Amino acid sequence: MRSPIQTYLEDLHRRISNQNSGELASYIPELTKANPDWFGICLVTLDGVAYSVGDSAQTFTIQSISKPFVYATALADQGRDFVLSKVGVEPSGDAFNSISLDPQTGAPFNPMINAGAIATASLVAGDTPEAQWQRIESSMSTFVGRDLSVDESVYRSESETGFRNRAIAWMLKNFGIIDGEPMASLENYFRQCSVLVDCRDLAFMAATLANGGVHPVTGKRALPTEHVERVLSVMATCGMYDYAGSWLYEVGMPAKSGVGGGIIAVLPGRFGIGIFSPRLDEKGNSVRGIEACQQLSHDFSLHVFNQVGQPGMALGRVYSGADAPSRREPGTAMRDCLNAQAHRIKFLSLHGFLAVDGVEYIIRQMQKMAPESHSFILDMHQVTGISESAARLLNQARQGLGAEDIAVVFSRIHDRQFIIDPLSKATHSGDHGFLSFEDNDLAVEWCENRLFGIDASTLAAPSSLAESPLFAGVPEALMRQVEAITKSQSFAMGVPILVTGQACDGRIFFIESGQVSILVPLQNGGHQRIASLGPGMNFGEMTLLGQTTRSASVYADSDVKCLILSTADVDQLSDQAPLLKIALLENLAKDMANKLRRATQWIAALA
Amino acid sequence: MRSPIQTYLEDLHRRISNQNSGELASYIPELTKANPDWFGICLVTLDGVAYSVGDSAQTFTIQSISKPFVYATALADQGRDFVLSKVGVEPSGDAFNSISLDPQTGAPFNPMINAGAIATASLVAGDTPEAQWQRIESSMSTFVGRDLSVDESVYRSESETGFRNRAIAWMLKNFGIIDGEPMASLENYFRQCSVLVDCRDLAFMAATLANGGVHPVTGKRALPTEHVERVLSVMATCGMYDYAGSWLYEVGMPAKSGVGGGIIAVLPGRFGIGIFSPRLDEKGNSVRGIEACQQLSHDFSLHVFNQVGQPGMALGRVYSGADAPSRREPGTAMRDCLNAQAHRIKFLSLHGFLAVDGVEYIIRQMQKMAPESHSFILDMHQVTGISESAARLLNQARQGLGAEDIAVVFSRIHDRQFIIDPLSKATHSGDHGFLSFEDNDLAVEWCENRLFGIDASTLAAPSSLAESPLFAGVPEALMRQVEAITKSQSFAMGVPILVTGQACDGRIFFIESGQVSILVPLQNGGHQRIASLGPGMNFGEMTLLGQTTRSASVYADSDVKCLILSTADVDQLSDQAPLLKIALLENLAKDMANKLRRATQWIAALA
Repeated sequence: MRSPIQTYLEDLHRRISNQNSGELASYIPELTKANPDWFGICLVTLDGVAYSVGDSAQTFTIQSISKPFVYATALADQGRDFVLSKVGVEPSGDAFNSISLDPQTGAPFNPMINAGAIATASLVAGDTPEAQWQRIESSMSTFVGRDLSVDESVYRSESETGFRNRAIAWMLKNFGIIDGEPMASLENYFRQCSVLVDCRDLAFMAATLANGGVHPVTGKRALPTEHVERVLSVMATCGMYDYAGSWLYEVGMPAKSGVGGGIIAVLPGRFGIGIFSPRLDEKGNSVRGIEACQQLSHDFSLHVFNQVGQPGMALGRVYSGADAPSRREPGTAMRDCLNAQAHRIKFLSLHGFLAVDGVEYIIRQMQKMAPESHSFILDMHQVTGISESAARLLNQARQGLGAEDIAVVFSRIHDRQFIIDPLSKATHSGDHGFLSFEDNDLAVEWCENRLFGIDASTLAAPSSLAESPLFAGVPEALMRQVEAITKSQSFAMGVPILVTGQACDGRIFFIESGQVSILVPLQNGGHQRIASLGPGMNFGEMTLLGQTTRSASVYADSDVKCLILSTADVDQLSDQAPLLKIALLENLAKDMANKLRRATQWIAALA
Repeated sequence: MRSPIQTYLEDLHRRISNQNSGELASYIPELTKANPDWFGICLVTLDGVAYSVGDSAQTFTIQSISKPFVYATALADQGRDFVLSKVGVEPSGDAFNSISLDPQTGAPFNPMINAGAIATASLVAGDTPEAQWQRIESSMSTFVGRDLSVDESVYRSESETGFRNRAIAWMLKNFGIIDGEPMASLENYFRQCSVLVDCRDLAFMAATLANGGVHPVTGKRALPTEHVERVLSVMATCGMYDYAGSWLYEVGMPAKSGVGGGIIAVLPGRFGIGIFSPRLDEKGNSVRGIEACQQLSHDFSLHVFNQVGQPGMALGRVYSGADAPSRREPGTAMRDCLNAQAHRIKFLSLHGFLAVDGVEYIIRQMQKMAPESHSFILDMHQVTGISESAARLLNQARQGLGAEDIAVVFSRIHDRQFIIDPLSKATHSGDHGFLSFEDNDLAVEWCENRLFGIDASTLAAPSSLAESPLFAGVPEALMRQVEAITKSQSFAMGVPILVTGQACDGRIFFIESGQVSILVPLQNGGHQRIASLGPGMNFGEMTLLGQTTRSASVYADSDVKCLILSTADVDQLSDQAPLLKIALLENLAKDMANKLRRATQWIAALA
């Protein structure tokens, strides 16, 4: 199948290719060498897939599109406050080459006009202009995801003819905005404008901003997250010069254009877009670039303010410990307790990146359920991250519910630092911290024990063969014959009693004392515990149905004593007393019918 | 538990209450009557929950905060193009009362300055100024969710002293921007500024914009969706006058303030915020209001450009027809086919509001899976909406995959017009349209039939008792004795054969011909089909295990012929031939073991 996104972009490219108005930039001869028909579009997703059409590999000089990225670098190097003291963030309402300095401070109005950009170039880290240039080049390369180079002839030409920019640089020196040697900063500015990119590079630069400052393919951080919204804000209000209001109104994406014919547009959290077409309108913006952005925004509903509210999205399924009990087989007393109470254990399956709005919704649902709840298990398996503010609120809710004796525990955050760190950071001194379990089964078992008000170990009282549900209905005399053919065996803690795939040797195991886990192998090489059994329970009984290999492994969780019965002995005894086999099969079938009913209920809760 | 959001807002309120700088507006005496210490904060979620602190029920006049809502009304009434021809959308960089008209057209720069707002008031629908006023009042009331009224003394005072605004109105008349009687439009403007609200009202107005134009509680649409991003854009670039750039940089929410001391801030898709505190800074903005917005934005990470990318969020679990087969019991040939092929049926469980970025991700996953897929079932149960552009792309993907003989079908969109409509709209002539099923079971059954390459009816060949898996291993001679004690019975299509809760009368049913459905009652009064059975299959067999009441209902889906065996007869026969009972129980247990294995696999796929 052709991707419909690719098809759409090709259609868009074809439609707009008819648009031939506008002129090449001509203030330096090098720019007039461009083929006016060049036209490339590239859209990059936040998981790093690039859809490209047209002349997407044609390089050109980045020009003013470098400005937001050097501004980003200055913010990363000097921090918000220092940078704001040197360059403002208000739109000037003027053209790109206006001088627009604050009458009081001399600070340029914003970093997107030339004056602001020249000042910004002087702010990046580096003891010498050469070190500053290295910093600019490597920072821009991190945004792009590959090493960049400069078009030396464009650079020389810009440098030789940039008289107005020289005037601006000296003016900035005059006002103390540039500290060092203004002509050296200006040369760096000329070089940054002469960096060669193609529209695919631009789309990746945009996608890195859309992705919170991390390149979607290399995974390298190009900018600390807190500065991303600042760069995008400046692009939104000043990026399109005196067209900013209309641009936000019509297109609704933070954007930046350059006289080389490039344009980038950033959809925070969604896409990065890069377009190249060198014919410019009278404001210096790529004619086809603007047209393509407008149509893309319209056709794909990409306006940044077009956000659909879905507070409930952070919360997936809600179900209870009655739907999904632990896989441990409880004794009679606990089973009665759980039958009556297990609905008071609530599973909440959380989803995606948890921000304040999602967590507010989750907390509200917990508040609603609190009167009938004993504990909440927050299953974090599908959580992709959590903001610090959301972690703080969630932690406060955990404490608040804890004060009402309602436990809130986490499941499936093991080894996932991006969730653990914000949660830990939100835990204050005096708070005992949060409880987390490797899987839902362990979590619900803990909640069940808490509900039953007991320590799990007290459940492990030794038991005799006759008490096993598998022998329900077998008369006492026959039971004695059965006991006569059983053998006793002990297993040390940690020992495998049965192993998946092993041939069935016909042994059925009854636990006298101790605990075992039933484990099934997972595709990733690990194991999943599907049950935990204690005294009075049996395993291996599927051999009664003619099973030829063991379907699960059984490990001794403690020192374990078992009684063992072989199917051959059972069949021999059943020849005289068919009632034995009938009772065993009937009890086995009843047990499976119960398990099946529970499984069906669980599926209904999950689906 | 106290809500941690509420606690946070109370802390915020307490902290900022110390902030006593700023002065009451004094250009009319009425405004000086406010208590300068009044301070209320309200935050409203998109499902309509309001968190309020402080003087949240104290009313005051809305003043300039009316401007974006009357602009919204003009857009709704006259459309984008006409409104844009009268009022621009560029920030003026000037104060609120600047005249700022475009030198060529005379159009005010934007609708947030007084000139633009007065022009906007003249644009709303209505044949007379009175009708226009009704329209303004009712539109604002829809945004708030309750009927509003005007503070008549403030209105009179504004009208009596608004000389500069009179000049502006006549200037607009001079340029042909106001068509009708300018003083009448001006009076409506004065009235709209004098509407009484509290900060809870403001928060609901903001939440309605954040919610795509629909009031989160009343569910009434206050503004067509396509205009919402326009109103928010104008607020973002012009809402805070000459502070717009810094506001977006520091706070990052479209906002609007009024000299009454109110301020609204809109987090598209997340929250609406309303704040009231009448002390103003020199730019006419509430001092505490700005402070509260800044802190809220910072503490809750609410900057509109701070969006975390999660393209994969639209796609929940992916599993296959091997994990979750249909509940129909297939015959041997089909079972073999499904064992080998059912993994080629893919379930994709979609989530939340489907926009272009989410659907792009989903389509990409389908492309990746296509080589090993025969059909895709898109489970729309958790989908809360789909944009037209996303529906278009999804439809194109369906057609593209269809051309490669891979079916894409929808499940669980029955009766959900908000999903069906965009999907239908995306279907062009010449396209046979999309296929949808009421539930996943019907969908996977259709996909299984397609995989098997047959019409389901051909599966329904009559069958004999000896072929039933329940009698596997029973010798022929014994089988003849069993046949002798069975009775035959026919049921007409639609007839209930067994009913949930009915006492078990010991009958076991074997289907000779026809189809039945096994249904379990749901809490909502409906039924869920848990299985569909055909010739050669049995039901009611749980009576063998001593079941006392029927746990499910069985309906004849066609005319059905059954053979019926009673457990009493079976037990009598088993007294002489225990092998019969042993075989029945063993087969029953094996069947349940199979079902249990499938259920466990299904649970693993879902969890």
